[in-house]
Amino acid sequence: MQSLPRLLKRPKLLSYTWRVKFHTSCLSQQDVLMGTVDKWGGVTVDLGSADCGLEGTYTHTSLRELDAFAGMLRNSLKQWKMEGKKAVWLKVPILQSRFVPVAASQGFQFHHADKDYSMLTAWLPAGSCKIPHFASHQVGVAGCVLREDTKEVLVVQDRNRETSHMWKLPGGLSDPGEYFGETAVREVFEETGIQSEFQSILTIRQLHNYPGAFGKSDLYIVCRLRALGHVIDHCTEEIIGCKWMDVSELATSQSTSLISTHVARLVLYGFREGFDKVDIGMKELPAVFRNMTYKLYHRQIPDS
Amino acid sequence: MQSLPRLLKRPKLLSYTWRVKFHTSCLSQQDVLMGTVDKWGGVTVDLGSADCGLEGTYTHTSLRELDAFAGMLRNSLKQWKMEGKKAVWLKVPILQSRFVPVAASQGFQFHHADKDYSMLTAWLPAGSCKIPHFASHQVGVAGCVLREDTKEVLVVQDRNRETSHMWKLPGGLSDPGEYFGETAVREVFEETGIQSEFQSILTIRQLHNYPGAFGKSDLYIVCRLRALGHVIDHCTEEIIGCKWMDVSELATSQSTSLISTHVARLVLYGFREGFDKVDIGMKELPAVFRNMTYKLYHRQIPDS
Repeated sequence: MQSLPRLLKRPKLLSYTWRVKFHTSCLSQQDVLMGTVDKWGGVTVDLGSADCGLEGTYTHTSLRELDAFAGMLRNSLKQWKMEGKKAVWLKVPILQSRFVPVAASQGFQFHHADKDYSMLTAWLPAGSCKIPHFASHQVGVAGCVLREDTKEVLVVQDRNRETSHMWKLPGGLSDPGEYFGETAVREVFEETGIQSEFQSILTIRQLHNYPGAFGKSDLYIVCRLRALGHVIDHCTEEIIGCKWMDVSELATSQSTSLISTHVARLVLYGFREGFDKVDIGMKELPAVFRNMTYKLYHRQIPDS
Repeated sequence: MQSLPRLLKRPKLLSYTWRVKFHTSCLSQQDVLMGTVDKWGGVTVDLGSADCGLEGTYTHTSLRELDAFAGMLRNSLKQWKMEGKKAVWLKVPILQSRFVPVAASQGFQFHHADKDYSMLTAWLPAGSCKIPHFASHQVGVAGCVLREDTKEVLVVQDRNRETSHMWKLPGGLSDPGEYFGETAVREVFEETGIQSEFQSILTIRQLHNYPGAFGKSDLYIVCRLRALGHVIDHCTEEIIGCKWMDVSELATSQSTSLISTHVARLVLYGFREGFDKVDIGMKELPAVFRNMTYKLYHRQIPDS
């Protein structure tokens, strides 16, 4: 509880506290939100946590409840600024999103949202905001599946696209937690029925303001895959055409993308001079935290 | 307006329409939300648009308004399902987030949110959801800045980290719209005061569930940069130590990360055999849409 002199210096707070106490039974009598503090001077308040200072389960929306939250947040921001805090993170369960406009009117913005929650942030100090960005790139992966016996590459024609006349490498967006090679092998199998094995990365495209990336950037990774079979059984829902094509035909085709012709030229060079001349190889290594590993892609050099 | 037989078949709709008409003056009398349809069978409704069927500016929150929206959304979903629509996208301005819990209770989830809006999605057909994921990777870039005269590499010690004793390559998260090399050059300059020039990519690490990536994945790209000067003027806010170190020392150091020793070994090999043996080179190419370009990273081969 606060001492009287502290309250007297803050008449607005007093009146707010009064409202909370006497009008909204479901709100805590504390006048600040409770959060956890991180080592970078940030505070995180989780409105879904029983410890955040908002009590009860709010099954209805009332102006009074939002008013009380507004006062509590204003008050908390004052205190955090006084304490020299930097970033404030406000995690809001999707069903409690009625609190979001209140936070927005006090300077919060969406940092990100995923499935059942949103995360809002506010930067307290003067000067530029140093809150780290959320994920900035979507990752699409294509498989350049090669038959060693015939020197052919697997190509497809998409359904539902302006580009349906073009022969492309099969591929798609990576699922959460997939490594590049895993995405390539999965997408190739889903689209064409061909089983394959990851060999290397051939090329990486970085493109900003990609249409369909919701304002974010796109990485398109082409993996070299070794075909483990050659009988095509393509997905008719996504694909209207699928065939094995001479790599040299893809390298000069007008009915494909510039990146596919680039890849085809790399492959032709690889067939001629050895794939060690075009591959970006892969190693799995242990991460410093938890029991995690990561994949490292680089040119392979002799062990020294 | 609807014909009488259509209304008779849908008694719930009738009662809902009645409520909208007679009790909430700020809601449209239309009984469905208006959206735009895309070529994949998706509907996008922007609650911030005057055309979405919700009229007026909602300066207050009332249960009635939310009830009316709930009816309208339920009704819209029925109609979209009947029409064979697949994905529904609901764009909600941050100040109108009070509508989000209503949508959530009808099966919507957050797809993403950024600054001043959130995007919710629902998948209508039976079977697995085919709504594309939002950006899945954050991108951090480090600069491996090399002095050609002394064969030294620029290394730093971070402030505020458990790893402050470790010598690391300077770097940080990419800003929106930056290419890998641009991030590396900017971060190196900000942290160390050293101007440099992008040469190539040396390695790419892919790591999932990265701490600090908000549940997303991390890409860490190490770029080879050529030092354009060697007088260090490091940022004391972020960095506690900065120096030029023999590459061979970094290659065997215990006070650095496994990835840094890997990079140092690549550089030693490059000094000995030529950087064409370790570089992943870069080209700028025109994109097929708008007047955009992209960067393509791959091994450089002779023009054929």
